[in-house]
Amino acid sequence: MIAPRTIALDAMSGDHGPSVVIHGASISLSRHPALEFILFGNEQAVSAELDKFPALAKRSRIVHTETVIAMDAKPSQALRRGKGSSMWESIAEVKRDEAHVAVSAGNTGALMAMSKLILRPMAAIERPVIAALWPTINSECIVLDVGANIGANARQLADFALMGAAMARALFHIENPTVGLLNVGVEEIKGNEDVRQAHVWLKQTTGLPLDYRGFIEGDQIGQGSVDVVVVEGFAGNIALKTAEGTAKQIGRYLKDAMQRTWFSRVGAALARGGFRMLRYKMDPRRVNGGTFLGLNGIVIKSHGGTDALGFASAIDLGYEMAQTGLIERLAADLDTFHHRIGQDAAE
Amino acid sequence: MIAPRTIALDAMSGDHGPSVVIHGASISLSRHPALEFILFGNEQAVSAELDKFPALAKRSRIVHTETVIAMDAKPSQALRRGKGSSMWESIAEVKRDEAHVAVSAGNTGALMAMSKLILRPMAAIERPVIAALWPTINSECIVLDVGANIGANARQLADFALMGAAMARALFHIENPTVGLLNVGVEEIKGNEDVRQAHVWLKQTTGLPLDYRGFIEGDQIGQGSVDVVVVEGFAGNIALKTAEGTAKQIGRYLKDAMQRTWFSRVGAALARGGFRMLRYKMDPRRVNGGTFLGLNGIVIKSHGGTDALGFASAIDLGYEMAQTGLIERLAADLDTFHHRIGQDAAE
Repeated sequence: MIAPRTIALDAMSGDHGPSVVIHGASISLSRHPALEFILFGNEQAVSAELDKFPALAKRSRIVHTETVIAMDAKPSQALRRGKGSSMWESIAEVKRDEAHVAVSAGNTGALMAMSKLILRPMAAIERPVIAALWPTINSECIVLDVGANIGANARQLADFALMGAAMARALFHIENPTVGLLNVGVEEIKGNEDVRQAHVWLKQTTGLPLDYRGFIEGDQIGQGSVDVVVVEGFAGNIALKTAEGTAKQIGRYLKDAMQRTWFSRVGAALARGGFRMLRYKMDPRRVNGGTFLGLNGIVIKSHGGTDALGFASAIDLGYEMAQTGLIERLAADLDTFHHRIGQDAAE
Repeated sequence: MIAPRTIALDAMSGDHGPSVVIHGASISLSRHPALEFILFGNEQAVSAELDKFPALAKRSRIVHTETVIAMDAKPSQALRRGKGSSMWESIAEVKRDEAHVAVSAGNTGALMAMSKLILRPMAAIERPVIAALWPTINSECIVLDVGANIGANARQLADFALMGAAMARALFHIENPTVGLLNVGVEEIKGNEDVRQAHVWLKQTTGLPLDYRGFIEGDQIGQGSVDVVVVEGFAGNIALKTAEGTAKQIGRYLKDAMQRTWFSRVGAALARGGFRMLRYKMDPRRVNGGTFLGLNGIVIKSHGGTDALGFASAIDLGYEMAQTGLIERLAADLDTFHHRIGQDAAE
């Protein structure tokens, strides 16, 4: 029997609040019967939704909270007024070791600020990151940072590599995940100094628990060239959003193209099994969930605007992370390797 | 009658040299009969190709050059040994006012270094940029910088906005192009200081020959939210490559999906007119060509690996730029507005 895994849910979060969160939890529970939930939010609103899902209700308990962090709250405001909110309490439940993971669809900035304050960064980690799952031609890879911070120095980039590799080990069950450093392709300006320095360090440090493959360019992410793509948060966030936008754009082209003539409409109808598979492959809800890495606990951020299916993906991700002892392994990796990387430049 | 427009071609450039360059020129000439070409390269190799296209031969003259810049040459090497090469001489032809535009499929770093040395940056411009055409749902937009430099300060970003707007005016015939500043969506860290400062300047400076729309995120580029997207070169290059990779990835999904069952294969065959339209929309050769902006002359960089159709797109772009008096207008814009932007911060 699998030991139960407890997820703390910010039930008030996202554009749709409890209706999406609770429905999402019930979908995820049907996939992972070992799940248990602690639901933080307005008791009345949450229990009204929970009544619709009796199987979920049996594996859940509601903790009433009074306040909700607005989707447009400034992180500083959220910190000042956050205590007692559904977001705050769901993170605190991880800190109290009552839950393995917290999942929220709330404001990213507020969620990261609170997570840092409550869970604290791991020793040696200056900057927690947001790691995204990115669909590739044959499977998935991990891209980090996709927007926790802007800019990163060489040491931080090297730590991103360690964190991403630990996550890949946990999720993909690969002992030495391949890692690439995202860079530009123009010879003259191959990366700024930090990217070049991180490259040298990752290449030279022996015994790292990863297989460093050097620089990669943006078009190689989706080809699945490596398991882990390391990039500072500004370019990483722009890359992620640009890929989402491009997928939407091509979906639109395709729809227009298939409605163009009588022949293409009939053809598209015949090929609907193929299109269903394509839609599935391109469905952004399948890989919903940014993982906060580098904290003493796991927090998953779901897209605010997603539906129940998307929110269920974020919970699934949290469940898999909880199964793996990621934090302990990552702490051990950082302990062993953080100081070995870039020793030559140590002050 | 349209006045002839002369394009200097680096006929030895790209992965395939004269065979692609000359064939590409003949395609472009059939679309724009006012074109004339000066072909720089090995006389024997170039004339052997030119013999295949009699109409092109009538509008072309060959200038023999001895050396070729290798695709993997370091920019510094290329500068030292570049004089007399097909790349150097095609740029110099623009400097001598013998050609309106130079087009090369050679090494980007070398081409930019030589272009800077020979044509010189325009007054007030610290950093020339590479501007890319980006297909959107309904048409195209301009994204700059896509990789001439890494990083950009607020003043440089503001200049990118002026340069991009001038190019949009020339290509899209819009008097006040809309401009957006690419940024990340996380409240807490909305851009680094330079991006925020450029935003304030562009918002506050009155009378700019553009319609500044504020921050945009990566997913809005392909939606065509603005005519011009401003971003520093590292994130811009990664965004461009990532979009290309995503398009390729989805093309692959689509192909797999359509070959999955007998029904989908028949459907795809019936819908082939629609797929042809889709392929056309997604064809990277349609928008091949990075424009070097901010120099006293126009240089277009074609993808090195493209075929004749792709190279023709780069020439077409050069032709359109030559038609418009872009450089003069841009010089006037910079003269008027460069110093008005960010006056508050002037030393």
